[in-house]
Amino acid sequence: MVKITIIGSGNVAQHLIKAFTKSDRTEIVQVFSRKKESLLHLVDSDKIATDFSDLKEADLYVISITDDAISEVSAQLPFENQLVVHTSGASPIAILNSKNRKGVFYPLQTFSKAKPVDFSIIPICLEAENQTDYTILETVAKSISNAVFSISSQQRKALHVSAVFVNNFTNHLYQIGQEICEEHLVPFEILRPLIQETAEKIQTLTPGDAQTGPAKRNDSTTIDAHLNYLTNENQKNIYKILTQSIQNNGKTL
Amino acid sequence: MVKITIIGSGNVAQHLIKAFTKSDRTEIVQVFSRKKESLLHLVDSDKIATDFSDLKEADLYVISITDDAISEVSAQLPFENQLVVHTSGASPIAILNSKNRKGVFYPLQTFSKAKPVDFSIIPICLEAENQTDYTILETVAKSISNAVFSISSQQRKALHVSAVFVNNFTNHLYQIGQEICEEHLVPFEILRPLIQETAEKIQTLTPGDAQTGPAKRNDSTTIDAHLNYLTNENQKNIYKILTQSIQNNGKTL
Repeated sequence: MVKITIIGSGNVAQHLIKAFTKSDRTEIVQVFSRKKESLLHLVDSDKIATDFSDLKEADLYVISITDDAISEVSAQLPFENQLVVHTSGASPIAILNSKNRKGVFYPLQTFSKAKPVDFSIIPICLEAENQTDYTILETVAKSISNAVFSISSQQRKALHVSAVFVNNFTNHLYQIGQEICEEHLVPFEILRPLIQETAEKIQTLTPGDAQTGPAKRNDSTTIDAHLNYLTNENQKNIYKILTQSIQNNGKTL
Repeated sequence: MVKITIIGSGNVAQHLIKAFTKSDRTEIVQVFSRKKESLLHLVDSDKIATDFSDLKEADLYVISITDDAISEVSAQLPFENQLVVHTSGASPIAILNSKNRKGVFYPLQTFSKAKPVDFSIIPICLEAENQTDYTILETVAKSISNAVFSISSQQRKALHVSAVFVNNFTNHLYQIGQEICEEHLVPFEILRPLIQETAEKIQTLTPGDAQTGPAKRNDSTTIDAHLNYLTNENQKNIYKILTQSIQNNGKTL
């Protein structure tokens, strides 16, 4: 059993606590959080540390907090030469304080507290300073997921930016779709199967092969009609820029 | 049995032929296409008409061709007072020639020939000039789908524009994600579960509740890092505009 201490109590931390509790290769030794109440539904009260000086020995310390705080928290840990990882897609391994052995354990998924996730299909991107530590992270990752990848800090940057496009920005396009529907008294639910199918197509086709629509077929009549129809300048602007980008096949104008 | 003639041989036409052939409430009488070969895998050769003068009597004629050609083809039909519908999200009911009874039978889904679709969950948006014709369309639609909606030409415009955002533009964001990954030698497959989950979240949450990411939490450090990281001006531009739109909650700047 790999003994794990989680530092943090946010969405990712909570999903990891659940996954590590279920796994038969890992054991949650402690969870650190200033807000004890937010964790009582997940771990016993005596396993929650609210002060760094209360931290016990573990094989792996997982810092799962906001990016801005990782550096400082890793410096405050009251021990040395332990394996300490963060879970951030946006931060390099070097952000961690050098008094401990550094690593990254980045589950590439969108987590919300409300919705349970199936960890077995979530890609986990690992990085470590040496093979021994990598093997520990790999054992832990493979005990909760079937999709484990070795990803350098440099590669993780690309993944994180890409994830913003395919997740955050995509979700915002859903929101614009909803706003247009609501403005014209059309139930947004009609679009839900289309949203689902758009994502499902990508599981087997490349985005290039899956692309359809007026921009792709250079249908200027429909494009002009849509631009005339939209009254919100922000929506119009986004429509124009994404249409041009599809027409230029993503190349710089 | 409602006797149906399909006019067209594209993606939507072919998926409709399959669905109507399977349904026990409908019967494909004929399919019209200038290119007979493209349909031989779906219908018997003697059911394929290549000239308008060969068209036989049917209860419903479904024009499923490119938007630009609907008006002309509906005018060329060698009969009057029949129920003729188109399947376009972008065209009003009035685009059809008035010598026949007009209607719209718009399946709101993204179709590609390569991928089979489950018609039962595809929303079908119907419009007709009177209740009798609407009832015929409703019978036909309900025989292949569980999601049938009465949608006016005005409402369909909103749906079609929204569909461009949540389908065409979303798919283009997938493509940008893939390009960033490829440029940095990261396998795009790592992002596929995230794409799937982003769409699945929307089946139960509103886009507003599902929104996460640096723009949503005003994390300017990460936003600046991403903009510095991107080298393609087009990608940078799209990143900036969608980030601003999220930060302004979709409101006009």
